[in-house]
Order: sequence, then C-alpha cells, then structure tokens
Amino acid sequence: METVRLGLVGIGKIARDQHLPAIAANPDFTLAATASRHGSVEGVTGYHDIAEMAAACPLDAVSLCTPPGGRYEQALTAIEAGLHVMLEKPPAATLSHVAALEAAARRANVTLFATWHSREAAGVAPARAWLSDKKINAVRIDWREDIRRWHPGQEWILAAGGFGVFDPGINALSIATQILPEELFVEHATMDVPAGRASPLAASIAMRCGEAPVRVEFDFLQTGPQTWSIEVDTDAGTLSLAMGGSVLTLPGEEQRTEPDREYARLYARFAELIATGQSDVDVRPMRLVSDAFLLAERRTTDSFSF
Amino acid sequence: METVRLGLVGIGKIARDQHLPAIAANPDFTLAATASRHGSVEGVTGYHDIAEMAAACPLDAVSLCTPPGGRYEQALTAIEAGLHVMLEKPPAATLSHVAALEAAARRANVTLFATWHSREAAGVAPARAWLSDKKINAVRIDWREDIRRWHPGQEWILAAGGFGVFDPGINALSIATQILPEELFVEHATMDVPAGRASPLAASIAMRCGEAPVRVEFDFLQTGPQTWSIEVDTDAGTLSLAMGGSVLTLPGEEQRTEPDREYARLYARFAELIATGQSDVDVRPMRLVSDAFLLAERRTTDSFSF
Repeated sequence: METVRLGLVGIGKIARDQHLPAIAANPDFTLAATASRHGSVEGVTGYHDIAEMAAACPLDAVSLCTPPGGRYEQALTAIEAGLHVMLEKPPAATLSHVAALEAAARRANVTLFATWHSREAAGVAPARAWLSDKKINAVRIDWREDIRRWHPGQEWILAAGGFGVFDPGINALSIATQILPEELFVEHATMDVPAGRASPLAASIAMRCGEAPVRVEFDFLQTGPQTWSIEVDTDAGTLSLAMGGSVLTLPGEEQRTEPDREYARLYARFAELIATGQSDVDVRPMRLVSDAFLLAERRTTDSFSF
Repeated sequence: METVRLGLVGIGKIARDQHLPAIAANPDFTLAATASRHGSVEGVTGYHDIAEMAAACPLDAVSLCTPPGGRYEQALTAIEAGLHVMLEKPPAATLSHVAALEAAARRANVTLFATWHSREAAGVAPARAWLSDKKINAVRIDWREDIRRWHPGQEWILAAGGFGVFDPGINALSIATQILPEELFVEHATMDVPAGRASPLAASIAMRCGEAPVRVEFDFLQTGPQTWSIEVDTDAGTLSLAMGGSVLTLPGEEQRTEPDREYARLYARFAELIATGQSDVDVRPMRLVSDAFLLAERRTTDSFSF
C-alpha cells in the first residue's frame, strides 16, 4: 500500500498526547498537514481549517480530534473532498449527525472510522474471546473518576450536549458492547444534575444483557483511587476488567497487564480499513447514552464549581 | 395473494377506534385472533398473550397496539414465531430495542413495519411531492394540544420514558422527515418539565434542514383551538400543512381537505410489504426525539395534575 497522506485536524491535548506519537510510529501514514485554529506541529504545514487544508494540500485522509460539536461539518467537508475520515469519540453531537456521515461516506465511497479508543485497551480482545461461549449471569460497570483532576475547568462537559459523566462513561459502554455476547438495553436510568447545569455528574443505569441484569454506576466526584472497572459473572466464574480495560483477570488466572497501545491500534485499524475499502461505524455506545437520556429520571443536586 | 391471517395485540382505545375498522375494510386481512389482558373482540378468539396466541392459532402476522414499554418482548416473540409484525408508533421504548427488532426480523426473514400514522394523512404525500424540487428557506412546526383533553389521566405519559409532549410531537417529526427534501438535525432544545415529573410538558427545539432553520414548538397545555401545523417557506412561496397533515394549502391554491384514511393506508402498506417480502423501519422521527433529549436544557416548571 502507498503511504496514506494524513491531515490531522484539531491540535490540542489529545492530538499531542496520543495521535501524533501514534502517527509518527506507523509507517503506513505520513503526516502531511494540520488544520487547527490555535495549535500547530513543528515541521508540518498548518492550515486554519479543513476546507483550506483540503484545497491546498494533496491528502488521502484526515483524523479529527476536535470537540464533537463541530465535527459533523468538518467530517462532511472532508468526505465530500473524497478523503477517508477517522473520528475521535463520540463521533458527532447527535445520532442523526452520525447517520448522515455514514450515508455521505457511502455515497463518496470513502472510509469512515468512528473510533472507540477504550476498545483497543489490552484486556478487551481477550475478554471478548473468553466471554464468547459463557453464560452471562450479571454485569457490574463502575466508572468513577474525579472531574476536577481529568477535566479541569472544562465547563462545556456539564453544558447541554456535553454528556457530563457520560463523556468518560461512554468508554465503559464501548467496552461492554464489544465484550458481551448479547446486546445491551437500557431499562431505567437516574441522573444527578447539579443546579444550573444541563448534564449529569452521576448516573445509575439499569441495563439488561439477554437475561442478565447489568448495573452501571457513573460518578464524576470520586476522589482518591479512581475506578474504571467491569465485572462479569458467568457460569465459569467472574471476569474482571480494571483500569479502563487494560488489566484483565480471569477466574483462576494471574492478572494480565500490557502496555497501553490504544492509539497505535486505532491507526493500524484505520490503515487496514482504507486498504480494504471498508468503514467501521458502530453507534451502539452512543445509542445507549441516548437511550439513557431518553428514559432518565433526573434529580437536581447541589451546584458544582470546578 | 392469500389472505393474511392477522392477530391483533392490545385491545384498547386505538385498536377499537382505528385498527379494527381498518382491518375489517381490507380484504387482504382476516382477523384471526386477539391477544389482550383485558379487552376482546366479539366473534374473534381471544388469548391472554402473544405467545399463547401464536402457539394456539395459525397466523401469518400480528399488529401491536400495546404501549411501547412492553412492545420489544412482544414483537420479538412474534418475529421468532415466524410472524410478520406491524408496530404502532413509537416502535419501542429505546432506539437500541428498535435496532434489535430490525436485526431479528432480518434473521427470521419476516416483514417488520414500524408505522407512523401521521405520514398517511391526506396532505403529506402531495406536500412531499411539491417540496421535492423547492429550495427550503425556513420551517415552522407548531404542535400544541391539551393533554387533559386527549390524554385524560394518562400519568405514564409524563413519567420516565413516556416522552411527555413528544408523544404527540413525534407525529410532527414523522411528517417533517417525510416531506422535507433534506435531513433534519437537532441543534438545541429546551424542555419544560413539571416539578415531580420526568417528561416535558413543553419543548422548543432549534433544528436545521440543510441551510434552513427549523423552529419547533411543542406544547401540551394549549386550551381552546388546537394546533398541529407545519409551515415551510420556499423559493416558490409558503406551504402550509394543518390539522395534523390532513389540510394542505399550497401558494395560490385552494385548501385541500380529504377524509382521514390513515389506518386504511397503513394496513394497505403492511399487505404490500408482506407480499413483496420487505420491511419498513424508519427510525428518524424517534432518533430526533432522542437527539433532543440528549442535547436539552431542562427547566423545572410548576407541578401538574390532570
């Protein structure tokens, strides 16, 4: 395969921490340009926006690390310019926008890859393989982190459309939909929304997976040790996936820990999708979030300041 | 085509008012049985539930008029018994349930028809045809009715998952998605939720259709004259669809009014889908409702009693 000439859009924290090292380490990609209103990358031509970049620079693909709110227009511009597109999670602001991007990519015959980086955590693929022939009895998902530590000053996350605690929580749902052998359904949800904010700081969701109850707890106010764990009780014992999917423990086995290769794997998969002319858009994690917002009972809790 | 042996599930107000007369008037269907915990139809064998009915009575298809909460399990039971299924709106409690039913129907090779009865109102098809080659400049959707008049004592409609004012409002969205030549997207939503209830009594939604702004107002507290209207400003004047889609006025033309044939048309379409081995599941109206719930800012308003 020829090297894929890639434009990186949105040069912020996630681009510098994860995307740039993963692109640099992958011989299938050449970072040809960036588009960003504020950031730039030394030695790479920078443009103000995606339309300007696509017009000025020969590209095959773009990767979008901008916030989800404006991602639809950016992705559509790239698709209509004939470029393959990789999207950070969540793929867009609403499910209707995601569906429209899928349709546009089909029409333009380009690859659309809606990524869920937590699915690439080291324990996820072996967890999926192990669970594939088990009977699931119960599932517990606990995703509890400190918003002030991981999202300092990010007011948008608690605004309308910011997803609140579902911003990290959707990572848990992306793993659960990947490893469980049957579909998940939301049956009931309770959300705690601080006074004066639109999005929840905490949520309890009762889901079902086949006959098994799935109890989900998301909390944005956990100080001290942080918890990103999924436990699955089966007819062959309990599987435990901790630290966001990177630490897997199977019944009677030693804990398995492997180095984080999430973004390296995402770019390897993007190269594979482009080479084989496929798209990968799994809306299930975002659909479950939407389902929870549709069914939720909301409680107003004390106001919150960062 | 052989006559379709139909089981009607959920014998309540909508079944008696709309489904039974439409089935009786359509020679493609024979009402072979009913399943209902409380209701029955004179001269037709009644069963307690769908599993009992499917086991005891030779059927080709079922039509579900039960509330959306339990519809997934009922529809799945029917699909797995090899029956074609027609669903009242909305098709299920969540979008994940709808997707799972679509997948099940494909596996079982049966017809699944998620109906939107308002799309069969007399003005909708000519409105769609007229708009197909127009430039849309702006859209106004006003769906204002008196909850006490149309839903007396129906506490569930304001409970979690009851959709609130989106229960009638989804009819407007089913028409809008049918007649407008481009896709709709929710950009912003405000919901008024009465104290102690989970679902809204009123909502304002800012949507977009291509470049055109779409302003949506849903209100459940309108006394006096009731409003179910859609107005579309185009480069060839303003189209007006009133009375839930039954009264169409095109620029420079007389108002067109035709008798209500919504359910007659739904059953004609169901027969056609069965005969041609197709399904018809358009989730767009429900997806827009989900998108609005995901993005909404909520205000708590005065408590409400029926």
